[in-house]
Amino acid sequence: MWFAEAPQRVFINEVSVRDGFQIEPQFVPTEQKIALIDALSATGLAKIEITSFVSPKAIPNLRDAEAVAKQIRRHEDVTYVALVPNARGGERALECGLDEINLVMSASETHNRANMRMTCEQSLAQFRGVMDLVRGTDLAVSGCVATSFGCPFEGGIAPARVRWAAEQYLAMGMHAITLADTTGMADPRQVGELVSTFREWFPGVPLTLHFHNTRGMGLANVLAGLAAGATSFDASLGGLGGCPFAPGATGNICTEDLVHMLESSGIPTGVDLDRLLGVARALPDVVGHDVSGQVLKAGKRTELHPAPSLGAGQ
Amino acid sequence: MWFAEAPQRVFINEVSVRDGFQIEPQFVPTEQKIALIDALSATGLAKIEITSFVSPKAIPNLRDAEAVAKQIRRHEDVTYVALVPNARGGERALECGLDEINLVMSASETHNRANMRMTCEQSLAQFRGVMDLVRGTDLAVSGCVATSFGCPFEGGIAPARVRWAAEQYLAMGMHAITLADTTGMADPRQVGELVSTFREWFPGVPLTLHFHNTRGMGLANVLAGLAAGATSFDASLGGLGGCPFAPGATGNICTEDLVHMLESSGIPTGVDLDRLLGVARALPDVVGHDVSGQVLKAGKRTELHPAPSLGAGQ
Repeated sequence: MWFAEAPQRVFINEVSVRDGFQIEPQFVPTEQKIALIDALSATGLAKIEITSFVSPKAIPNLRDAEAVAKQIRRHEDVTYVALVPNARGGERALECGLDEINLVMSASETHNRANMRMTCEQSLAQFRGVMDLVRGTDLAVSGCVATSFGCPFEGGIAPARVRWAAEQYLAMGMHAITLADTTGMADPRQVGELVSTFREWFPGVPLTLHFHNTRGMGLANVLAGLAAGATSFDASLGGLGGCPFAPGATGNICTEDLVHMLESSGIPTGVDLDRLLGVARALPDVVGHDVSGQVLKAGKRTELHPAPSLGAGQ
Repeated sequence: MWFAEAPQRVFINEVSVRDGFQIEPQFVPTEQKIALIDALSATGLAKIEITSFVSPKAIPNLRDAEAVAKQIRRHEDVTYVALVPNARGGERALECGLDEINLVMSASETHNRANMRMTCEQSLAQFRGVMDLVRGTDLAVSGCVATSFGCPFEGGIAPARVRWAAEQYLAMGMHAITLADTTGMADPRQVGELVSTFREWFPGVPLTLHFHNTRGMGLANVLAGLAAGATSFDASLGGLGGCPFAPGATGNICTEDLVHMLESSGIPTGVDLDRLLGVARALPDVVGHDVSGQVLKAGKRTELHPAPSLGAGQ
């Protein structure tokens, strides 16, 4: 075996509609978002992060959060998630009947101030407000520790800081943790070590990894995460999303490339790759530009070509 | 640890000047090839594949093989390699005083006919002619098994076929083997399994892996190869090279992205990454188009950004 412990199933959380679309130069029309989510729902993905219940002023591209959340056709096997920054966002998520909300704070104080315009303590105070609101409801809550693998302003992030953030989340009742490599700084060794350590700190706590392919290491980091026991990953159709500090760099790891790698390696994802590629094929028209996914350009590895005919004597 | 057995040092064979330039739409002028090789020689790379002693009619882009081989400034720590298809090529390599030659046959009979215009038996006969010629000289000879991980015409390649090819090579006196994923079909599990098996079949035989990033799995395959004990990899500056069957897809794994991943992970490569990035930065001007390397676009992960200044009260 290539791993000591091969995963039985990998769970993929599709984030393009939220994490990708929020930074697109053009607003993606509501009906196109809904059509995309509905198409994604039929591919076998475990989760889809469909929008963010933030202020429309903060992220105008997601100003149609309610319309999207209410008009999609829910598939019973898919968990529908939204990002929520505060209690008001939590109310909106409850009103829309989401399955899960995702609360995000950076391990890096500097990044949290830049990204959320709050100190980490202020973020945690907001989250406590959300938890008070959702207590007793069916809404699941996961907490994301952004910049867990490095901060573009501060540099390295001490694992103890990641642990502190996760402890705060769990103490207030969140049921799952995402460790995010927000700007693509993670390397495979670091991923292996942090995932192993996380599993020792928090045995049994569901863990999701969120990687970017900014420096080409995205799928290698997935492999390192898998080898250390992680089985749940965020990914984005076409590799949408990205880092404002690296123009020209790729964004989130690409869902179809991830599924292709895992299924080729014999690791089930539950996703119908052909169907997913069909959805991905329409993405450049939706966003109005080329996207970074490789399998869409090159075809699956199983797609063969006719052998060139050779002249006589050759 | 993230691996059972972490490599002490990884050796990189830079193939851009041969494998990349041979398929560029424009001929790269001889003096630019020489300047590039000289710059690469000062970065700490273990090997550089500088040209191919083929017929100028077959590969017009490398028609300056002798001029390049004779005019580069040799660095004592670098092994200079050329691809050689037959005894005539071997004579030219000897005359130019190369350190090593690389003989290539595909594991796939169909691919060998398409690529080399010979059956595998005809390729092996050519190689025997080369080995007769170089016997008793200082010229090292490595044999590359192309399409070891899959053939774009035939599909899957049986490991037994790869073993057969390597046995033929070793029996005629070659000292090292390269397993090449010629069109980017390898997946990490397959790499781990084939490398482990190869090391059981041929204990002590130096092994190099040649990966393409056609479907985004290139660096993940390196990681799988490392975990199985491989320590030597081909790579191409800027990710030059590629597959004629996948327009728009990336080519060879990118040297600077590979070095960045390995050094970030604490695995020494001997390469000065900053110096290598300096050489890579000039590459788009040499070839006249953008290249696929990610680290050049995004910067090293250690390159920090100034934190945005925030307004009062935020």
